[in-house]
Amino acid sequence: MKAAIVGATGYSALELIRLLNRHPHVTVTEMISHSHDEELLSDMYPHMKAIIEKPMIEYDLSYLEKEVDVVFFATPAGISKSLVPEVLKTSLQCIDLSGDFRLLKKDYEEWYGGEAAASEVQKKATFGLAEIYKEEIKNAAFISNPGCYSTAALLGLIPIVQTEWITKKGIVIDAKSGTSGAGRKLSRMTHFSEMNEALIPYKFGKHQHTPEIEHYLSKEAGEEIKVTLATHLVPMTRGLLCTMYLPLNQSVTSKDIWELYQSFYEHDPFIRLQPLGTLPQTKQVTGSNYVDIGIHVDERTEQLIIVVAIDNLVKGAAGQAIQNLNLMNDWPIDEGLEYSPLYP
Amino acid sequence: MKAAIVGATGYSALELIRLLNRHPHVTVTEMISHSHDEELLSDMYPHMKAIIEKPMIEYDLSYLEKEVDVVFFATPAGISKSLVPEVLKTSLQCIDLSGDFRLLKKDYEEWYGGEAAASEVQKKATFGLAEIYKEEIKNAAFISNPGCYSTAALLGLIPIVQTEWITKKGIVIDAKSGTSGAGRKLSRMTHFSEMNEALIPYKFGKHQHTPEIEHYLSKEAGEEIKVTLATHLVPMTRGLLCTMYLPLNQSVTSKDIWELYQSFYEHDPFIRLQPLGTLPQTKQVTGSNYVDIGIHVDERTEQLIIVVAIDNLVKGAAGQAIQNLNLMNDWPIDEGLEYSPLYP
Amino acid sequence: MKAAIVGATGYSALELIRLLNRHPHVTVTEMISHSHDEELLSDMYPHMKAIIEKPMIEYDLSYLEKEVDVVFFATPAGISKSLVPEVLKTSLQCIDLSGDFRLLKKDYEEWYGGEAAASEVQKKATFGLAEIYKEEIKNAAFISNPGCYSTAALLGLIPIVQTEWITKKGIVIDAKSGTSGAGRKLSRMTHFSEMNEALIPYKFGKHQHTPEIEHYLSKEAGEEIKVTLATHLVPMTRGLLCTMYLPLNQSVTSKDIWELYQSFYEHDPFIRLQPLGTLPQTKQVTGSNYVDIGIHVDERTEQLIIVVAIDNLVKGAAGQAIQNLNLMNDWPIDEGLEYSPLYP
Amino acid sequence: MKAAIVGATGYSALELIRLLNRHPHVTVTEMISHSHDEELLSDMYPHMKAIIEKPMIEYDLSYLEKEVDVVFFATPAGISKSLVPEVLKTSLQCIDLSGDFRLLKKDYEEWYGGEAAASEVQKKATFGLAEIYKEEIKNAAFISNPGCYSTAALLGLIPIVQTEWITKKGIVIDAKSGTSGAGRKLSRMTHFSEMNEALIPYKFGKHQHTPEIEHYLSKEAGEEIKVTLATHLVPMTRGLLCTMYLPLNQSVTSKDIWELYQSFYEHDPFIRLQPLGTLPQTKQVTGSNYVDIGIHVDERTEQLIIVVAIDNLVKGAAGQAIQNLNLMNDWPIDEGLEYSPLYP
Repeated sequence: MKAAIVGATGYSALELIRLLNRHPHVTVTEMISHSHDEELLSDMYPHMKAIIEKPMIEYDLSYLEKEVDVVFFATPAGISKSLVPEVLKTSLQCIDLSGDFRLLKKDYEEWYGGEAAASEVQKKATFGLAEIYKEEIKNAAFISNPGCYSTAALLGLIPIVQTEWITKKGIVIDAKSGTSGAGRKLSRMTHFSEMNEALIPYKFGKHQHTPEIEHYLSKEAGEEIKVTLATHLVPMTRGLLCTMYLPLNQSVTSKDIWELYQSFYEHDPFIRLQPLGTLPQTKQVTGSNYVDIGIHVDERTEQLIIVVAIDNLVKGAAGQAIQNLNLMNDWPIDEGLEYSPLYP
Repeated sequence: MKAAIVGATGYSALELIRLLNRHPHVTVTEMISHSHDEELLSDMYPHMKAIIEKPMIEYDLSYLEKEVDVVFFATPAGISKSLVPEVLKTSLQCIDLSGDFRLLKKDYEEWYGGEAAASEVQKKATFGLAEIYKEEIKNAAFISNPGCYSTAALLGLIPIVQTEWITKKGIVIDAKSGTSGAGRKLSRMTHFSEMNEALIPYKFGKHQHTPEIEHYLSKEAGEEIKVTLATHLVPMTRGLLCTMYLPLNQSVTSKDIWELYQSFYEHDPFIRLQPLGTLPQTKQVTGSNYVDIGIHVDERTEQLIIVVAIDNLVKGAAGQAIQNLNLMNDWPIDEGLEYSPLYP
Repeated sequence: MKAAIVGATGYSALELIRLLNRHPHVTVTEMISHSHDEELLSDMYPHMKAIIEKPMIEYDLSYLEKEVDVVFFATPAGISKSLVPEVLKTSLQCIDLSGDFRLLKKDYEEWYGGEAAASEVQKKATFGLAEIYKEEIKNAAFISNPGCYSTAALLGLIPIVQTEWITKKGIVIDAKSGTSGAGRKLSRMTHFSEMNEALIPYKFGKHQHTPEIEHYLSKEAGEEIKVTLATHLVPMTRGLLCTMYLPLNQSVTSKDIWELYQSFYEHDPFIRLQPLGTLPQTKQVTGSNYVDIGIHVDERTEQLIIVVAIDNLVKGAAGQAIQNLNLMNDWPIDEGLEYSPLYP
Repeated sequence: MKAAIVGATGYSALELIRLLNRHPHVTVTEMISHSHDEELLSDMYPHMKAIIEKPMIEYDLSYLEKEVDVVFFATPAGISKSLVPEVLKTSLQCIDLSGDFRLLKKDYEEWYGGEAAASEVQKKATFGLAEIYKEEIKNAAFISNPGCYSTAALLGLIPIVQTEWITKKGIVIDAKSGTSGAGRKLSRMTHFSEMNEALIPYKFGKHQHTPEIEHYLSKEAGEEIKVTLATHLVPMTRGLLCTMYLPLNQSVTSKDIWELYQSFYEHDPFIRLQPLGTLPQTKQVTGSNYVDIGIHVDERTEQLIIVVAIDNLVKGAAGQAIQNLNLMNDWPIDEGLEYSPLYP
């Protein structure tokens, strides 16, 4: 299978290229970049030298239709919503890593600003939270890949919100991310001299992944759930950790919760439930598609704490996109994703 | 005034020496280290060369009684509890930066393990949370200096727990610290290759600053308060940030809370309330005694979020100790502490 | 004495403000920024809140002439060359931290590009390498402050190039700097995600500090000297280390060299010669004006290695500027500069 | 083929396990650790959970002889020299990643201290510098894998020392490494709080890779060559950069040198010669076996500068060991090593 990547110079695209490079069934044959048309990716990113030497090209759907089988959109917010409708008229498989199709129209316009994709197109998108929506994804032609914070938060919260053990009001997500989540766009916040040795809270109450988390959490709980999401940038490149607090409304132990999760995810190879008494660190998933989950019940205060660690560029972006591609094509779920974490 | 520092090779001691070096009324004349007796501090820490060239000595109270006016204990847990009782029989001022006298006997034994200091000695200790207990500190001869997490948490929470605006149950403190808070003791967790590019949750439900926070919070609120404290190590050396979540039980705005804090701390020069809409970053206090506080009300979820940033070694340890010394001696509160933060 | 800082939002300016804030004879009363006219510095840099609250203003020489005594130019390359000529017609003291007046016209045009300052104005500039040109500086009204690499390299090399112990051809300067040396201008090289965990060689054979080093080295040696300068960015914010290699042409020991340096710098309080067998690390000078020098003779290969560590923003920029101001005004050399390094 | 790794808890061993995990012809079946016998590697290193779940065992050669085909020694200095002689009496392939067999007896005793391996055993070791000694390695049963600094220095220097273009005296290697090169042994130098934001020169004139570099450089040049090696630790986990200075003795251009290297390494897929005018950064090889080489002639000073970047744990240790295994078994050179660098 041949793949095209639109927005080839962003970090999610780099990660798609890195991972697909070892995928047995897929070859990246076209890299599309409007601003770097005809350039070599390896001139811009020397780490790709000798790996990918084909020049980047302009976006041209009729060309892609002939040349490739799947198109990944790894574009900044607001690009794919105008391109995808035409793609859906072709037989191409399509995976959008941006946020353009993740939200209902009204939520999009409230949280992202600007005009949303047409509702009828948005409805064709299958939300690519791979462990939860396997069956839908297997039958999908168009995937909207979840956000990085959403992936960690939803995988950590969905098993528990389906129980009666917690109060659904008062869920807090304290989220911390490495800077690659902010992309390669230059900004003062991510200027090395200012980001280094700094821990930076940002976008409290305004992060655009909030409605995505609430929508799918509510769907899985069968009732409306709101969450408090507070995001922080941490002086490291990769890694995302969500520490999530849920008020318990009955006496349950860490072990009860652990067994619930163990059973919930027993057939999901990328979920690694940590042994009781241990908590996951971001570094233990670097470069891999793993989702490491830790459980802690603070019995003194009747709070359940769920900690989830992922690599924001892999399970939080490109890795999950490939996991979705594997599902769509009935390939083993871990094709191209069997990398061990890079440690130390 | 002459000062002795016991435990001179630890990071809090280094910071005491750095700050007292510019204090107009105090000179560090004695540095005590059992394990480095007769060595020069600058042989171990070359940054002190040409600044402090006197050899370290063994602890000898009768000598100190003659030679100095104040003794700082910057010792690991469990040392000062056996030394301080004798110090209190002298006319020496005494400031203990360790946790040995912060807790009631039963709390100490539960959270630290080992035998606590005698209750009658512990009762002589004044808790040196300088903005809150100014008057008591002015009359004290023996200060138990607060923990770093406790300082940030208490200064952020005390104004609000005295109101009826929040539910006292369900307070969450998501705390993040640079590694210097873990001291200079070698460990795998703080080995550079493993700590770098890692975000590490640790000691959930077990951190020994928990009872200290709860005790003084309860005291100030006039009712028993429990908190969920979850601590994380961040790959940076200095800086501590507490993101604290409190369920609101009535409709208040960010501005209401902001004005409460503004009024509460209006005479406290080290408290810098951030303009509404902005949140403090750790780097903006590096090397200084400032406590930067940000307020955010998430109206959608009826949660109040308080963010507090301090330098864990300054306001979280040595700086606050000097602030206490200034109070004890009726010196201006900022003597020796007027440093601007080091940025970037 | 009142001071104005032109280019107030750059990192050297921040450092001037930090240091002058504790200077007993100087107050920063005017901060000039063309692009941030009327803004508060503390809106842009929250670490300055409660420290400097005066708005920035536009550059207006006639106003400055009335209001201040000294003007610091902390401007990007190419600005001060057009402003300083008018300043020199006033009675203002003037210190330029940029490179505009460091080089002879032909060198400037070769290494910086663009038109140089007029030669007759450039000749009025005294090169502010404070340990070497004390006497000239004491009588100067206009100082051209050295570059960061130049400061470290020249202070490390000048004592030895005045001897016959080394071959003057073949001097190599392997220079490594933290990112703050590259300033606050955004670039892909200093984007956190790309600079973090990266060691980046740059500008080999083209660095604009090369002719400055060669000019003063030749002057002090009494013969023309060329140097190979290779600069590298290191993933840290502050600190600069030059490892310098000189071919020995006779048998001398580390001790011989060490004694030469000891004697050369014996009256210079900011020079700290390291004990033989030890080498300086950047972190031991952070935030301070110290210049830590280590000596190593590799007898097997007949190479002398000189290692110099400075804080690029202090001794490499603002600290040395203040040291020059102290000299110009016959104040103690360390006024405003007595800070101990921040460690760890 | 089945592999055993002795010293399974060190960083080189972790990297062997990571890379061999995707090798089509090799499975790691035995992990030997004296101090962690019977433990799971994933208890100590949670990143390995679900990847390697077999307990570690004690070293037992007769067991290994039956169970595996190749033994890797990833042990600290001084261990393999006593174990390997017995291994060589079996039919096992053997690759030693430590320094025990890299040096002649007299060099070992001078630079490492302690007693060297017996000379007759040392002579059986083939030096595993894979690009240079391909033919010898293909016929070898016992490989002594080169040191990390040696690999970078030798691959960068060997092509040029075989010419008459440079003076053989006066070669300088300014080497910089991430901290993982110092291993997982705890030390104050690599304690996060002290290593972070620090650039640390160390072991000047004493680094044990010096004689290894000189021996093979002399061999390839056909004359005795000494080098000045100055090593530095950089605040990053992975990556090693050598900036090497060689005095030219005739007029050659960067292009001449570039073409020499291009031709020398044209059949070596892991060598990536950088385009003229660009220099390699460490980050562009992270996690990969690439050796990125940059060429710069400083015509003003008649110095040739060669810059080499490798990942110290891959090409500098485990990756090269696998490259050697591939050669020994006539497998494609890049089996198990086709990873793209992890970027950013």
